[in-house]
Amino acid sequence: MDLNLPDLADIQEAHRRIAELVRRTPVLTSRTVDGLCEAEVYFKCENLQRVGAFKARGANNAVQSLGEAEARLGVATHSSGNHAQALALAARTRGIPCWVVMPRTAPAVKKAAVAGYGAEIVPCEPTLQAREQTLAQVQAETGAHFVHPYDDPRVIAGAGTAAVELLEDTGGLDVIITPVGGGGLISGTAIAAASLAPNTRVLGAEPAGADDAARSLAAGELLPQTDPRTICDGLLTSLAPRTFAAIQQHVTAILTVSDDAVRLAMKLVMERMKLVVEPSAVVGLAALMTRRDEVPGRRVGIILSGGNVDLTRLPW
Amino acid sequence: MDLNLPDLADIQEAHRRIAELVRRTPVLTSRTVDGLCEAEVYFKCENLQRVGAFKARGANNAVQSLGEAEARLGVATHSSGNHAQALALAARTRGIPCWVVMPRTAPAVKKAAVAGYGAEIVPCEPTLQAREQTLAQVQAETGAHFVHPYDDPRVIAGAGTAAVELLEDTGGLDVIITPVGGGGLISGTAIAAASLAPNTRVLGAEPAGADDAARSLAAGELLPQTDPRTICDGLLTSLAPRTFAAIQQHVTAILTVSDDAVRLAMKLVMERMKLVVEPSAVVGLAALMTRRDEVPGRRVGIILSGGNVDLTRLPW
Repeated sequence: MDLNLPDLADIQEAHRRIAELVRRTPVLTSRTVDGLCEAEVYFKCENLQRVGAFKARGANNAVQSLGEAEARLGVATHSSGNHAQALALAARTRGIPCWVVMPRTAPAVKKAAVAGYGAEIVPCEPTLQAREQTLAQVQAETGAHFVHPYDDPRVIAGAGTAAVELLEDTGGLDVIITPVGGGGLISGTAIAAASLAPNTRVLGAEPAGADDAARSLAAGELLPQTDPRTICDGLLTSLAPRTFAAIQQHVTAILTVSDDAVRLAMKLVMERMKLVVEPSAVVGLAALMTRRDEVPGRRVGIILSGGNVDLTRLPW
Repeated sequence: MDLNLPDLADIQEAHRRIAELVRRTPVLTSRTVDGLCEAEVYFKCENLQRVGAFKARGANNAVQSLGEAEARLGVATHSSGNHAQALALAARTRGIPCWVVMPRTAPAVKKAAVAGYGAEIVPCEPTLQAREQTLAQVQAETGAHFVHPYDDPRVIAGAGTAAVELLEDTGGLDVIITPVGGGGLISGTAIAAASLAPNTRVLGAEPAGADDAARSLAAGELLPQTDPRTICDGLLTSLAPRTFAAIQQHVTAILTVSDDAVRLAMKLVMERMKLVVEPSAVVGLAALMTRRDEVPGRRVGIILSGGNVDLTRLPW
């Protein structure tokens, strides 16, 4: 199997390709957090990214990578999360159609967000099989190009551009911690860091109730996530062979955290740093706060991956 | 009466004095907001300032302006809001004591915040008379130097430094809108803009339920605020003669907004820009959204004054 992982050159090319389409998000700090964690913590604020998540990077890189003829047929994906919004906006930016296969049961607010960016929502039954069949049907009918939420080298390369900026803007770090869902963000981050800053370790963080990456890394084989239970709704998915390979090659450790630790970290970031973050975004901070001994070094970069949360239903 | 307003040189001196003590907060934009307002809106994010509010600027400028002997006796103020926290932190930074007179009825969370920065809270009955008597007593007993929340040229000069940065970072604006409570922020902003960017108009925004500045400007005389009714808990106070003079001299208009407009603006900033803001911070955006015809020009700067809000009691 050809895993076709991007390298640093791919990430740098992605960075140039999307420079005008995404934000260079700020890196923010907090004395309160530093004091609590006994560290210098640098937050890469991808919650302030377009569509409120780092997903804008990968989606735009994928869409902009398409040739003219291919692009004209449009893009398609299955996702009810941030990738769907990101792909919809990336497609609109390029002026091409976008189809998003979503379960009928997806929250109305998520459907509205995707539709608001101009994509066409294709409803399906809430099963994996229905999702894949519906996507195949969309592709067959339209010729649309499938952009997977994370199992795609262009998406991984795009995700890696956040780490390039974080390393540039901080002048070097001992460690970077990212959330792990499907593994796109951590793969891009780890590949970028391995080349740009070989002394910077990359750690993953994931909820204990969706700990497939930690279990897979320990077992040495890809163990899919079944029955995930966590408030981190962006981290429910399983790794792909491609992202698992990048993790095995470049990631020092995957730390799991409780949902209670996530709630505390989320409240801390919102109350003290005045940043709206989604639960999935703060697993890295939760890991630093609760498992400090396992995070090497003092200068810690944390990628706040997104801020798409229902403000009428905050988890406290 | 000597109104003793600061001039641009005072603001620039304040800027140098506090440079290492406060953040140079980012200026953020949102395509969604721009589309809704048919404008290019530049948000100066003082919610990301230390202590979560622009008040850190004035408090640090006042504390750092004190001579060594005077400083040693400490500082005092009466406030249950952001100024109290800002003064407490500014005093701690300089290593001097700080007393804050607060009504017994103030929320526990506000007392805890001030105490958390190391200030001593002096409780008083919740009346204006008790507050002033208690403060006078503290000063008599300790020799502490009183730093008023807004009626102080050093505090006004400090507040004006946010506008200096906003003008620098945007390369020029047609208009800047700030909230108006006691008038410290708008006075500093208007004085800075009048000298640095004479073509930039400065507008104030305030809740309709605490519209003393609008009424005062219309009447040509200072009309105190009685019985304020608004969710904007940072904008309840009356102007001082000093701040009213600056407004009369330099401010184009004061626009009033409903609490409903404030709620909508707050939700927009939190949902779309992922920034935690307090109601008082978004009156400028609420004015732009509901009274667009009265805001001249296309390039609009808005100072988001603070982000200290109870996240368990958001106003929706």
